[in-house]
Parts: sequence; C-alpha cells; structure tokens
Amino acid sequence: MSELRHNPMNGEWVIIATERAKRPHELIKKTGEMKRPSSYSGACPLCPGNEHMTPPETMRIGWNGKWQVRVVPNKFAALSSQGEPFRRTHGLRRFVNGVGIYEVIVGSPDHNRTPALMSPGEVELILECYRQRYIAISEDQRIDLVTIFKNHGADAGTSLEHPHSQVIAAPILPSEVQRRMEDALRFYNEEGQCLGCRVLREELDDSVRIIQETPHFVAFIPYASLSPFSLYIFPRRHMASFGEIQPEEISDLARILQDVLAKLYYGLENPAYNYVIRTAPNANSYSRYFHWYLSLIPRLTKVAGFEMGSGMYINVTLPEADADFLRKVELPVSDLLQAS
Amino acid sequence: MSELRHNPMNGEWVIIATERAKRPHELIKKTGEMKRPSSYSGACPLCPGNEHMTPPETMRIGWNGKWQVRVVPNKFAALSSQGEPFRRTHGLRRFVNGVGIYEVIVGSPDHNRTPALMSPGEVELILECYRQRYIAISEDQRIDLVTIFKNHGADAGTSLEHPHSQVIAAPILPSEVQRRMEDALRFYNEEGQCLGCRVLREELDDSVRIIQETPHFVAFIPYASLSPFSLYIFPRRHMASFGEIQPEEISDLARILQDVLAKLYYGLENPAYNYVIRTAPNANSYSRYFHWYLSLIPRLTKVAGFEMGSGMYINVTLPEADADFLRKVELPVSDLLQAS
Repeated sequence: MSELRHNPMNGEWVIIATERAKRPHELIKKTGEMKRPSSYSGACPLCPGNEHMTPPETMRIGWNGKWQVRVVPNKFAALSSQGEPFRRTHGLRRFVNGVGIYEVIVGSPDHNRTPALMSPGEVELILECYRQRYIAISEDQRIDLVTIFKNHGADAGTSLEHPHSQVIAAPILPSEVQRRMEDALRFYNEEGQCLGCRVLREELDDSVRIIQETPHFVAFIPYASLSPFSLYIFPRRHMASFGEIQPEEISDLARILQDVLAKLYYGLENPAYNYVIRTAPNANSYSRYFHWYLSLIPRLTKVAGFEMGSGMYINVTLPEADADFLRKVELPVSDLLQAS
Repeated sequence: MSELRHNPMNGEWVIIATERAKRPHELIKKTGEMKRPSSYSGACPLCPGNEHMTPPETMRIGWNGKWQVRVVPNKFAALSSQGEPFRRTHGLRRFVNGVGIYEVIVGSPDHNRTPALMSPGEVELILECYRQRYIAISEDQRIDLVTIFKNHGADAGTSLEHPHSQVIAAPILPSEVQRRMEDALRFYNEEGQCLGCRVLREELDDSVRIIQETPHFVAFIPYASLSPFSLYIFPRRHMASFGEIQPEEISDLARILQDVLAKLYYGLENPAYNYVIRTAPNANSYSRYFHWYLSLIPRLTKVAGFEMGSGMYINVTLPEADADFLRKVELPVSDLLQAS
C-alpha cells in the first residue's frame, strides 16, 4: 500500500506511490539533452558581444575588461523599477501598481556552460552575485521579498539556453511565503525552536535521505519530497535570510551545489530543473523562527492535472531510494579534479 | 505599467502584465488539436467492448444494456479503498497509510466526444454522476475531502484521449484546501458574510468580466485571474458543498459548462484545460462561510519557472479582455440548436 507523508517545510501532503514506484533510469527523458549546444550563439542576447541586446547592466564580476558574471534588468520586465508603489482597494479588489525589480543574472560568458559542468569556483561567482544583489535589493524600502531562482531546460520553463538565473522583488508578499512564515512562527511558539533547524537535525539523525554533507551545508531529499529527486540544501547554521551568508559559506555552498547538479547531470542525463532560494521576507530578515534553504526540483515527471485538481502530490519514487541513487552517482575524473 | 491584483478566493497575487499583453489569437497553440481522433480506439481501456481492461465498475448511467457514463476505480490507484487509515508520528514525520478512493468517470462511450462537443444533456449525465459519487464518497467516514476534476489534453497532464474525469478522496486535507477554509472563515468572522457570495456580487456589479449568466450559475473571469482565460463558474445560491446541488441546478450547470467549453473550443482552438470543483471538506459540508465553485484553467501558457520560483503569477492577458473575447465567440449553428 502506498503512503501519505507530510512535508513540514511547505505544509503539503504527498502520496508516495510505492506500488507505482519507478526506478531512476525510468525517469530519464531521452531528449538528447546530453548533446551540448555550441559555446557561442550570435543570436543569444546573453552571449559576449551582444551586450547591447540587454538593458544597461546593474553589476558585473570580471577581469581584464571581460565579464564572468553580469546582472541586467529583465528586458521584458513585468515590474518597473521606477516609481513608488501605491495600493488601491475597492470592495474585495486589491490593486498595487507594478513596481519592483526583475533582473537576469548571466552565469557565464559561455553559452553552453551549465552550472553542472562549471568548476565550483565559477559557481561561487554566481552565488556571490546572488548575495550582492540580494543585499542591495532587500535594502529597497519598496520591496517585501527578494526571490532568486533558476530555471534550467525547456521543461523547467526557460526560453533561453544561455546559463542564467533570475531575481524578482515585489512590493507584496506572495501568499505561499506568508503561509510558510506563519507555519514557522507557530512551530517556534509551540516548540521553542526553528522549524528548519529541527528538520535538518531529524534528517541528519535519520541519515538515509542525506545526499552529501559539507562543513556548512547538507543536501538531502526530504522525507516527504513532493516529486522525484526534489531536494533541499540547508545551511547548518541558523540564518533566516540568504543575505546573512558569509564568504566561507558561499564557497562551501558553491561546492555542494555544483556537486549535486553534476550528480543530476550525469546520473539522470541533464534533466530540466528549477531551484529557488527560500528566504525570509525583508521585514523578518533576522527572525529566529525561519531558516533559509535552497529548494531544487528536477522536472522529471509531468506535474499537472493531478496536483492541480487534488491539491495533493504523487511521488512515484521513494525519497530514500532517490538519495541512495544520487549518493552513488560517480562523476567523471575531470569534475573530481575540479572539486578537489 | 503593469499591475498587481489580489485574488481573494485563493489568496494569490498576480502580475497583470499589460505591457506584455497578448491578444487571444496569439495564445492559440497550432497543435492540430482541431483534428478530431476517431470515435473508437481498440486499444483504449475506456472504449465500449474494452470494459474488461478496467477494474469492475462502481456505477453506470445508461439504457438498453448500454452505458452512457460509467465510473471505475483507477487501475493504477495511488490510494487503496480497502482498510482503515492509521496515523503515525515520529518527530516531525507524519505518516498516513494510503487509504482512499481514486476513480475514473468515463464521460461518453465515444472516444472523441469531448464535452465541448456534447449536448448539454450529455454533460448533465456526467454531472449527475459527479453528484452521486460525491454524495456516496463523502459519507465514507475515512475521507476528509472529495475532489472531482478533469484534465483535457496532453498539456493538462492527461494520458488518455477518451473523455473522462477523476475523483480523488483521501484521509487528509490538502494544505491548500485547509488554507482556503481558514481564509474564508476569517472573512466570515470579519465581514459577516460568505466570501464567495461577496465575490460573486462584486463581479456581477462590475459586470465587465462576466462571460455568461444562467438562472442558477454565473461564469466569469475573476478580477485577479492567475492565467489567461482562467475562469470560475459560481452557483448563485449559497452552498458550501457540491453535494447540496439540486436537479434543476445540475441541468443548468451542464448548460453553462458546455457553453463555456464550446466557446473555448471554437474561440481558442480546443485548448488543453483542467477544471476542478472546489468544495468544502466533509467536516464543513454545510458551513455558512464557504461557497463551492468550479475553477477552469485553460493551459495556454507555460506556468513553470516563474511561478515556481517567485510564488507569484504573471498573466499576459487582461481579465476584462478575456471575458469580452469569450462573450463574443460565436458557436456553430448545430451547437446553438443543441443548447436551445
């Protein structure tokens, strides 16, 4: 019989469908994703030489006049960085004008250099960029929450091949985030400890779903993972906000993130994925009850009708088996050398 | 400048991206979906003659020994209808064994007879089936919530072409539903009225987003529709639970639902869609604060990376323009005759 498991980080129930369980290799989509695109595309607005195709850049990290990572406003900005937000209410209708920040972080000058194939040092520059933009934008008094996320592959909703991440910041708090904060606060009030700290401790005690540990971070498949290979990377130290991350932690996070992405790349043949940094809203930056973490969701199965209709999730793999599989993925020697 | 709007029924904020606004015909996917499949498929487990390919049926509506609508347990049941649910807790881990009901409602003996092309009378039989199964399953003491939904088209996550809907009932309340109930109760306590009744009244007063009205139902695009052409069909009468629906209301709902589906079919060239009946949990069947409704989501745009990452939605159409477009879709004469 299948079982229902509850995920305390997002409040969701998931049916772990053991009787329909699939083995990891059954989830691999043979879409030719292992064929790498060329390292430069003349039509790509994110490739070097095409800088004029994007709005003027917000920041860059580079040397010798060349950039390694750069940040530009999203050309098709759904939010405008100019002006002050104003709220209007008419009956039940709540309206806020579309003020906010929406940026693209270009992760590499190479068109085909996906993070799974980068060195940890290259990933570190991207994360450093995340940190600087996070801190700068969270000081903007108009903004309630800064969200950093990455989509990789068409099934994850990206339209650009060139490696990039996105930052979005709006003058409202999405209901999902508000609910997570309320749940975390309730837990803190009842249990006297941070929900994330507790989840991490229980996962470490249980150990069967741990993928990898570093001095500052732990990567694991949560007990009630909503979909195959959905995983969390948690900082060991309590931090509510991503902006609190320290340089040695950035470097350590780069190592574990690159390693996990490489394991997905080689073990599951470059699946599409989304990752998002789940962090506290600006008003709760240093709260004792929320723990930031990175949530990574490979897009191996179609989440559509069932979830949308039922409000529940079906996971056709066992979280314990997923973790075991990822632990055992062997990386090519070149990656091991880079990581050492 | 774009604007942020708040949807009180689901608590979500959506960016109405007026500057990226698309016209309806730009959303049409030219996937050849207007080519109808043949009316019978030998390999289809839902076609007449293949009844042995499904588990024994739960109910049918038919005559002369033939069925028009039938209900069968889902062959690949993620939940088992046998046994009693038991809960186990270990630290933060919450576990319930996978007891529940998961059924398929076959909407027609014809393989290619999608509801948009049915007569209202045929749709009525499907809805009557929904009603009977809803009432029967909600009397099962093990079940917390009965959810009825339909996926149409590959982009909506269906793997079977044959017209069908699904019923799922589990011994837990999905967090999304719990939150909606809490929001509705808070509104009721503060405002002394049902949130759904109020939303409906404001939409009728505003009138610009109404698609169609019948004696018992109203179809409209909500003020803060999360995606293009996402629409609600609300009963005018306050009912918390779908099980309260009366025969004349079933017949009226069939007419408005068939009409809206036909407008989508002809106006947007048979888009994929999901619909779900959002109804009160069994424990709150007759509550004064929740209003059941049907939520219909055409799958015209890829909801993926942005929503998943940011927790916000972007709608690239104006709800007012969507409603106007649907109001003006002209149906073929044969459909008008059927509907009269």
